[in-house]
Amino acid sequence: MSEVKNKCAAAKAASAKLATLGSAIKDKALFAMADAFESGKESIFEANRIDLASAEKNGIAGAMLKRLTLDDAKVMQMADGVRQIAALRDPVGETIEGYMRPNGMELRKVRVPIGVIGIIYESRPNVTADVAALCIKSGNAVVLRGGSEAINTNLALAKIIQDSITSAGAPENSVQIIETTDREAARELMSMKQYIDCLIPRGGKNLVRTVVETSQIPVIWHLDGNCHVYVHAGADLAMAGDITFNAKVQNPSVCNAAETLLADEQIAGDFLPLISDRLMEAGVELRGCEKTRAIAPDIKEATQEDWKTEKLDLILVIKVVGGVDEAIAHITKYSSNHTDTIVTQDYSAAHQFTGEVDSACVFVNVSTRFSDGYEFGKGAEMGISTQKLHARGPMGIEELTTYKYVVTGSGQLRT
Amino acid sequence: MSEVKNKCAAAKAASAKLATLGSAIKDKALFAMADAFESGKESIFEANRIDLASAEKNGIAGAMLKRLTLDDAKVMQMADGVRQIAALRDPVGETIEGYMRPNGMELRKVRVPIGVIGIIYESRPNVTADVAALCIKSGNAVVLRGGSEAINTNLALAKIIQDSITSAGAPENSVQIIETTDREAARELMSMKQYIDCLIPRGGKNLVRTVVETSQIPVIWHLDGNCHVYVHAGADLAMAGDITFNAKVQNPSVCNAAETLLADEQIAGDFLPLISDRLMEAGVELRGCEKTRAIAPDIKEATQEDWKTEKLDLILVIKVVGGVDEAIAHITKYSSNHTDTIVTQDYSAAHQFTGEVDSACVFVNVSTRFSDGYEFGKGAEMGISTQKLHARGPMGIEELTTYKYVVTGSGQLRT
Repeated sequence: MSEVKNKCAAAKAASAKLATLGSAIKDKALFAMADAFESGKESIFEANRIDLASAEKNGIAGAMLKRLTLDDAKVMQMADGVRQIAALRDPVGETIEGYMRPNGMELRKVRVPIGVIGIIYESRPNVTADVAALCIKSGNAVVLRGGSEAINTNLALAKIIQDSITSAGAPENSVQIIETTDREAARELMSMKQYIDCLIPRGGKNLVRTVVETSQIPVIWHLDGNCHVYVHAGADLAMAGDITFNAKVQNPSVCNAAETLLADEQIAGDFLPLISDRLMEAGVELRGCEKTRAIAPDIKEATQEDWKTEKLDLILVIKVVGGVDEAIAHITKYSSNHTDTIVTQDYSAAHQFTGEVDSACVFVNVSTRFSDGYEFGKGAEMGISTQKLHARGPMGIEELTTYKYVVTGSGQLRT
Repeated sequence: MSEVKNKCAAAKAASAKLATLGSAIKDKALFAMADAFESGKESIFEANRIDLASAEKNGIAGAMLKRLTLDDAKVMQMADGVRQIAALRDPVGETIEGYMRPNGMELRKVRVPIGVIGIIYESRPNVTADVAALCIKSGNAVVLRGGSEAINTNLALAKIIQDSITSAGAPENSVQIIETTDREAARELMSMKQYIDCLIPRGGKNLVRTVVETSQIPVIWHLDGNCHVYVHAGADLAMAGDITFNAKVQNPSVCNAAETLLADEQIAGDFLPLISDRLMEAGVELRGCEKTRAIAPDIKEATQEDWKTEKLDLILVIKVVGGVDEAIAHITKYSSNHTDTIVTQDYSAAHQFTGEVDSACVFVNVSTRFSDGYEFGKGAEMGISTQKLHARGPMGIEELTTYKYVVTGSGQLRT
């Protein structure tokens, strides 16, 4: 049996036990994991140094090298994240809905784990810890398939995770990590529908597209974040400036950063000069529509491609719109339906915007950067789903569950 | 533009309007539809007669011909079903969850329609009415693709549906029906991911498998029902006999009929002779394990294939098991995770069974035949999902929705 099949089958067997395991043992496993990350950090750093050395040899540098690097602070964060997940209420066993039918049958819709989660992800090793913790907490077994660039770090983390789980009395095969990092192994993983219930790709657009197109297992995808800030005519312009700046500049390389600013024509003349100076001082490249460039002529011309592309960089595209209807029409056409925000003090505009914009997260007077599992109070996240089935937006432990109907009666027969 | 693409695009355009349409207009459309089925029944019968004539020419007979035939009673039922759906509470707009974060942001998880539903189904024309009504009620546009054998009936029903919707003021393109019934059109429909958010196959196993394997759109599948009745040692044997009989005989051709009886060895000697006589009198063919045949020697031998196959016929496979653990192990191995029931008066056995059996519907002292949208109080159903993501078990209007996060604040910025 291949490594992939072997490990998927082991995870499946563990999942049946994990599904009915009480919170006490699951939480004990998570606290043991957090402690072991801290006490075992030297073994993590040692493995991480091997990955960093190969990375440098392969010419990996900049942001990607930084994401790959673990230090004291990152390990502490990782451990804290796991403890926060442990502190959440166990979603398993919750009665989501319960009622009685006219014939006396009692129905309960009860939350249960999905079973086995597969995850295919890239570079950041802290994903290994987050994902393992979220899956254990929600009673799911997990098969991890990280990128080759972080394989040694991931294996060191997985060893600590597996030892902690076993020491706490949870099924030892609950967390599996695929050591073979070639494409063949990834392809084989995507075919394991008899063992894996749900596959989650987390990483770049190409990775996600490949998984969506190849997988025989249902996929919850996390595609791009082409997020919009719409500054309405009735906005508090100081607030609008702060939100636009925060949404673009605070961390431009993530999916919930803003890519497009829609400025209402009634305030564009006042607002655009102020915000464009502030953004350009922070190193942001601005590209605008014709009306924008009539107001601020030193802004470059935006191309058709600009409106639909996630930049993940210090670039902001600006369009002047005639009002709420045009703003919503633009978002409907170009948004990736991840997160879009309106800045306004006008009740009707806010109401129309939240009602009509069909995105996972629709905000009023809040930075798009809040579209995040931790910020939503979910402890951590599996990612931000941009699909509509099962989970939409930040995916936490609740989104790693399904339900079953438990129906009890006294001999009811169908007539 | 092809017929399929054209209609999918029209449905997508209608879905945006339908998503924010109030209940009053949607319900008005449903009541108009129900009335028009009744007043327009002659045009339905006329179309149905054309389908029945071709069916007979093609040698279709028996149950399939019966399912295709519409009469006064069936049209009345169809109209009543639509009125029942109209009377349900609108799921759209419900706040599923709402809370405030430490920084003062208010989060609401709000139920919204999925968007455009595609459905590929076979023979029974009443599915056309049920599905259209469920989709409209839940604010979704729908693209219907029925089988060629019912095409004239389906077109007549769709005409009535479309006229009723338009007369009530709902978007006229909300319900689309594909007239081309060849495989090419089905294949094209399965590729329309830019327009269709969710594809539901409803019909035979081959149809479902083909859709699951071919579709580029997320699929909620409705596979086979290999359902079990486990009669525990602590069962009331009269109740156990009635439930077994009802689960097998009341309608053997549907997915929630029982296929396997698991009899606890402590009661098998008393129970099997009684129930086997009763079942055989009703024309049920029995096949059993060795221990079963030691008790009732005139029962045929069950093959390995029997344990895993949905019969949809008057055949019941019987196995004697040593207790709850063996019963659960058998179900875990062979069940299609649709519906499994235990008959017992013993608390611990019921508790263990409902906790450990990983099926969409797990019952205690209730016939498997209750696994049904109408019986669950959902008015009607899109089908019974046997997958774990998004919807599990009977799918009603709530399962045709997703959610979005509406977050409101006062200028919150991420730090």
